[in-house]
Amino acid sequence: MTDNDSLLVIGLGMIGGSVLRSAREADPSRRILGFDADPEVIQLAHEYGFIDNSPISLAELAAEASLIVIAVPPMAFDAIFEDLARLHWRDDVAVTDVASVKQLVIRACTDKAPDLLAHFVPAHPVAGSEQSGLLASKAGLFRDKKLIISPHGGPLVDGVRERVEAFWQSLDCRLALLEPGLHDELLASTSHLPHVLAYVLVDSLLRHPNIDSLFEFAAGGFQDISRTASSDPTMWHDVFISNKAAVLEAIEQFEQRLALFKSLVKDERSVDLFAMLKNAKQGRDDYLAKYRG
Amino acid sequence: MTDNDSLLVIGLGMIGGSVLRSAREADPSRRILGFDADPEVIQLAHEYGFIDNSPISLAELAAEASLIVIAVPPMAFDAIFEDLARLHWRDDVAVTDVASVKQLVIRACTDKAPDLLAHFVPAHPVAGSEQSGLLASKAGLFRDKKLIISPHGGPLVDGVRERVEAFWQSLDCRLALLEPGLHDELLASTSHLPHVLAYVLVDSLLRHPNIDSLFEFAAGGFQDISRTASSDPTMWHDVFISNKAAVLEAIEQFEQRLALFKSLVKDERSVDLFAMLKNAKQGRDDYLAKYRG
Repeated sequence: MTDNDSLLVIGLGMIGGSVLRSAREADPSRRILGFDADPEVIQLAHEYGFIDNSPISLAELAAEASLIVIAVPPMAFDAIFEDLARLHWRDDVAVTDVASVKQLVIRACTDKAPDLLAHFVPAHPVAGSEQSGLLASKAGLFRDKKLIISPHGGPLVDGVRERVEAFWQSLDCRLALLEPGLHDELLASTSHLPHVLAYVLVDSLLRHPNIDSLFEFAAGGFQDISRTASSDPTMWHDVFISNKAAVLEAIEQFEQRLALFKSLVKDERSVDLFAMLKNAKQGRDDYLAKYRG
Repeated sequence: MTDNDSLLVIGLGMIGGSVLRSAREADPSRRILGFDADPEVIQLAHEYGFIDNSPISLAELAAEASLIVIAVPPMAFDAIFEDLARLHWRDDVAVTDVASVKQLVIRACTDKAPDLLAHFVPAHPVAGSEQSGLLASKAGLFRDKKLIISPHGGPLVDGVRERVEAFWQSLDCRLALLEPGLHDELLASTSHLPHVLAYVLVDSLLRHPNIDSLFEFAAGGFQDISRTASSDPTMWHDVFISNKAAVLEAIEQFEQRLALFKSLVKDERSVDLFAMLKNAKQGRDDYLAKYRG
């Protein structure tokens, strides 16, 4: 491995940190660079030995990198692409990302760094944790997890797609392919909606006059269902706003079924209520057996 | 220990099974009896060595027991209390239960077995699992878990309360006290509402035209948040119906906050949306630190 193969991760939070620590584990000889808007985080990553550079400018780092992973919150992509567009970056560079929304980041690249589009292969590792920040990162976070490649559909420089895919595969991800619009629609239901419910559940309980007793008597079910409400609010603010249409649609589907559920309980329509619960249990059990077995 | 100290568990599902297996672990010499509406389940529990009796009538078992734990779904309490009222049960018997709703079971006892009320100390172990059935039971399920004693407020035979509490303490529960109405109101928010959300989330996703892809790309967040949708539909049907008023109230509180959330996203009111998410995260983190730390 030479400097030609340097990896640069932009955004040293939990996911960005996990990318570079996993990459280091996969190939200890590879040069690994890291940038963050906060120089103290770069310094910290350097002190922990996660990256090979101390705080220097994005321009200097980008000049060295052949693979760039952008791991900032969705709404920070505009600024990153603006910065990258201004830089003198190498012709052979390949760019990928980790954002939970794909149409937004493609739009950001198109608007702010159109020349970079032919180097950009959007990706989304379906892995995470409710924890945030560099020190919550871990090597191996992506192992056996799905990694969605979500190509923008425009032309790509030869070899870029292969290099991005090879990189993610080197972290032991299982590659899958989803068109960006479909990605954003599916994830709105399976990831964004569950996060909405967790946040709003906690928000709703916090308004209870007896909140201390509520929490005191909460059981394991509450702890699990509310877990994702401990996720980074900046990141999820960005996801909800930037995938607004699909998120609102998923919420409205949910609201309709919640209204039905309420009416079944209110009218004590036991047969229909039982059927609804049984069907949901069956669906969830099938999901587990098929995809988590 | 003599036969005078026999324990009888009525309802050999996951919770009932865990009660008798935990009791056996706590005191291997104690005689442990089990009854279930399904004789095959009694037979199974006997074959596994969880109970000391083979399938015989509830009358014969109740005649031997000094402590009875009722562990049937909430809406089966009427029938159980009717049966118990008809039996020749011992004067020194103490009765407790494990139901997730407390007003209903007190009403059932008052209506169907008023003479038993002075022997009945309602209880609710705040422990469980999304699995159901005898073979999902385990010894130690209640260890270090909260056990809510929820007295009906009427007179009790001397010593009954102490014997019920001592029994639960022998399973290493942490005893707490809640008046039945407050129990049902608090649990509606922290346990019943989360179960509603999990069931309705899965139900809502199942209606998606692309359900296979949805599940294929679902992440850990979905798996956690939907876990309780795999719970026993009979049991949860009963809880929702029998705690109707409090459950509907908790859902309506949630709906109001969900509507607010939607409007914040729709209008891209970033500052307010971020504040709502941050506040929920803080609340959930505080809960973890205070009660799960």
